Amino acid sequence: MYFITFEGIDQSGKSTQLKLLAGSATTAGIDTLSVREPGGTPLGEQIREILLGPEHANMDAWTEALLYAAARVQLVKEVVKPALMQGKIVLSDRYIDSSLVYQGIARGLGIDRVLDLNLGATGGLMPDLTFVFHLGVAASRERLAGRDTAEDRIEGEPLPFHEKVEAGYRQLEEMYPGRIAGIDAGGSIEEVHARVVAVCHERLGLEL
Amino acid sequence: MYFITFEGIDQSGKSTQLKLLAGSATTAGIDTLSVREPGGTPLGEQIREILLGPEHANMDAWTEALLYAAARVQLVKEVVKPALMQGKIVLSDRYIDSSLVYQGIARGLGIDRVLDLNLGATGGLMPDLTFVFHLGVAASRERLAGRDTAEDRIEGEPLPFHEKVEAGYRQLEEMYPGRIAGIDAGGSIEEVHARVVAVCHERLGLEL
Repeated sequence: MYFITFEGIDQSGKSTQLKLLAGSATTAGIDTLSVREPGGTPLGEQIREILLGPEHANMDAWTEALLYAAARVQLVKEVVKPALMQGKIVLSDRYIDSSLVYQGIARGLGIDRVLDLNLGATGGLMPDLTFVFHLGVAASRERLAGRDTAEDRIEGEPLPFHEKVEAGYRQLEEMYPGRIAGIDAGGSIEEVHARVVAVCHERLGLEL
Repeated sequence: MYFITFEGIDQSGKSTQLKLLAGSATTAGIDTLSVREPGGTPLGEQIREILLGPEHANMDAWTEALLYAAARVQLVKEVVKPALMQGKIVLSDRYIDSSLVYQGIARGLGIDRVLDLNLGATGGLMPDLTFVFHLGVAASRERLAGRDTAEDRIEGEPLPFHEKVEAGYRQLEEMYPGRIAGIDAGGSIEEVHARVVAVCHERLGLEL
């Protein structure tokens, strides 16, 4: 039915908010399917290991963009499109916008080239609604430092990289105001959830 | 110095001829580096396992094209370009033309779209000379059947797929007559090698 994606820098709360929204939808009697990128298929999970494993420090930016796109195509074909055809709401933790921001802007490949690559490969499937959670780089780094799991290859990038990512998301928001809704990630989890539910109502008419 | 690629359907003798040419070059005092696709880097070898493993029978054609391109970019950056800069002749068992033929033509993604994808990602590195070995599908299947190793995912495709590949290589040869040299793969290994050496002399002025 609707394809809704969750974007933002690490620790911005997107995964938590995805789960909460899925819960609200289920309570309201709406079928949802939740996925995460990169991954979500056996093939995609293998690609995820290559992408996030810390051993490939010398990965070329294009290699990275191509691997994200490869995992994405398989997810769209095997999981997302079939679920949308069945009338489900599909919620995805990251999607094309992550590539536009991380590889297109922060790695400098250019938004247009990364968008072309992804539109061609996915058959042009864009989200109906995208949430971008704004936390700020300082708070993101603080939350990451307090976590007990090791950083993955992308999380381990130096601070200026993450500042480009945060600025990149704001740039995308200006480019796609009809599709992207920026969400203040400050406050309690419940407060942020209320903002997400309100946007779903305003933009898609969902009663959650 | 020169980037020379070896193409053709399975069992057409390209790998054998690559090794023979590398040997002749070494004897002539020319530094060469030999690589194979997909693979040739630690990252590329991991991608190779995903691509050729028989378990991913449902791999989307775009996923396949993106994975080949990802391995290729890493190979170009880490290995091919540095070796060319050092004045070596780089010999590659498969390169962009394999993607144009297998994914662009045989899988139907279109030559133009697969070429765009690969030119963008590799920074436009095309071979100086490409050999396409013509064996014929029947002989290729016969040699594969006589081999004692299991078929990989691509080799295991049905006959019409391999016929499209053979026809695809002939189509590329007509598109790029200045770069691609078709080689009759019939006769003894030494006879085929003599044909390859003759083309290296004619087109690149190499005395081997």
